[in-house]
Amino acid sequence: MALELYWGSGSPYSWRVLLALEYKGVPYESHVLQFSKQEHKSPQMLRMNPRGRVPVLKDGDFVVFESLACLLYLDRKYPEHPLFGTTPEEAATIMRVICEYQAYAEGHVTQIVSAVFLDQLDENAEEVTRAMHLAAGEARTIEGRLSKSDWLVGEQVSAADMVVFPGIMLLLRAMEKREAGDLRSRFLPMETTYPAIARWIRRVEQLPGYERTYPPHWRDGAPRG
Amino acid sequence: MALELYWGSGSPYSWRVLLALEYKGVPYESHVLQFSKQEHKSPQMLRMNPRGRVPVLKDGDFVVFESLACLLYLDRKYPEHPLFGTTPEEAATIMRVICEYQAYAEGHVTQIVSAVFLDQLDENAEEVTRAMHLAAGEARTIEGRLSKSDWLVGEQVSAADMVVFPGIMLLLRAMEKREAGDLRSRFLPMETTYPAIARWIRRVEQLPGYERTYPPHWRDGAPRG
Repeated sequence: MALELYWGSGSPYSWRVLLALEYKGVPYESHVLQFSKQEHKSPQMLRMNPRGRVPVLKDGDFVVFESLACLLYLDRKYPEHPLFGTTPEEAATIMRVICEYQAYAEGHVTQIVSAVFLDQLDENAEEVTRAMHLAAGEARTIEGRLSKSDWLVGEQVSAADMVVFPGIMLLLRAMEKREAGDLRSRFLPMETTYPAIARWIRRVEQLPGYERTYPPHWRDGAPRG
Repeated sequence: MALELYWGSGSPYSWRVLLALEYKGVPYESHVLQFSKQEHKSPQMLRMNPRGRVPVLKDGDFVVFESLACLLYLDRKYPEHPLFGTTPEEAATIMRVICEYQAYAEGHVTQIVSAVFLDQLDENAEEVTRAMHLAAGEARTIEGRLSKSDWLVGEQVSAADMVVFPGIMLLLRAMEKREAGDLRSRFLPMETTYPAIARWIRRVEQLPGYERTYPPHWRDGAPRG
């Protein structure tokens, strides 16, 4: 029985697992859930993940959720094209970069993106300014890594790239919205502000199967975040 | 050359790695840093981790930080006594429980503990009440798991236990402080409020080498958090 992935368009956590599945070349059945219809909170979904969140990965009778757990599952189950490197040192550094992103960048990105999508920049000006400052600091660190290497860790794309990439894409999408206003110039154009990150984005976009991972509703130009 | 661990007494992140080292039975050189003397921000430490945080694990020329990355390193380097199970399914569930703790519980625990140690419960009453409510919900989930099994995932102690245990111990320590006031009765006595968690704590305390992982300044009864 094929793997099944339940996911939502625009969810950065889902995007991570889609990137991993395509990179591994593992066949999977794709179930895109409509957040607007609360499909991720359906009885069927809540049976698999009581928190009602995506992504959820199902492999026969086995179910796993939380994106990082899905990545680890795929890597242990399908070791070809490793996501966590081939040595203990690579695995550790990949996980370190993931943990650093989650601990020091992700929360700020979420705060900025939410403020833009909910058009609440003015109400939360102080908090968002602080988040921008901290996110920009982390972006400079990432820029530094990518100015020395094609991928975040080592010579190959890894779970680190798959974790960080969707967050950066979400931030860029927010910056392109009218509501972003003056924030835009802090990040755009990427080619000028963060040239190594801009080149890395092009590199990820060239990965086989990338097109299938891109949030469908972003392509449609639909108004949802 | 032996592994070296740089850590701080009372840091739950450090405690995780100490538990893992002792469980693996890997010899290591222990460097306890004094937070009060800012030893974790010394030039030597900042060269290893520019963020100036502990734990930092050094293995010859290789350095890793971020507790989860240290656990993964130890597990890949010393596969005996696995921390992430023996099957893809176990690895995934262990990581899932870790991610859930980090995403849904840890922030609230930190908020409560900080408010108690800084004696700021009154100033932050509303936030702390909310954090208590959410932390208690997660504690009930953990209580549910442990009422059916000796360990958080599977038949053996795993990285999941090592990640969650120090956070719970820190929360308990905060609850025992005078400043905790009325909060105390929400969690203590554990034997009544969360009996399965209380039994699990005894079980962890019986692990070989546990005594060497216990925060030294907690034993001294020193006033630091």
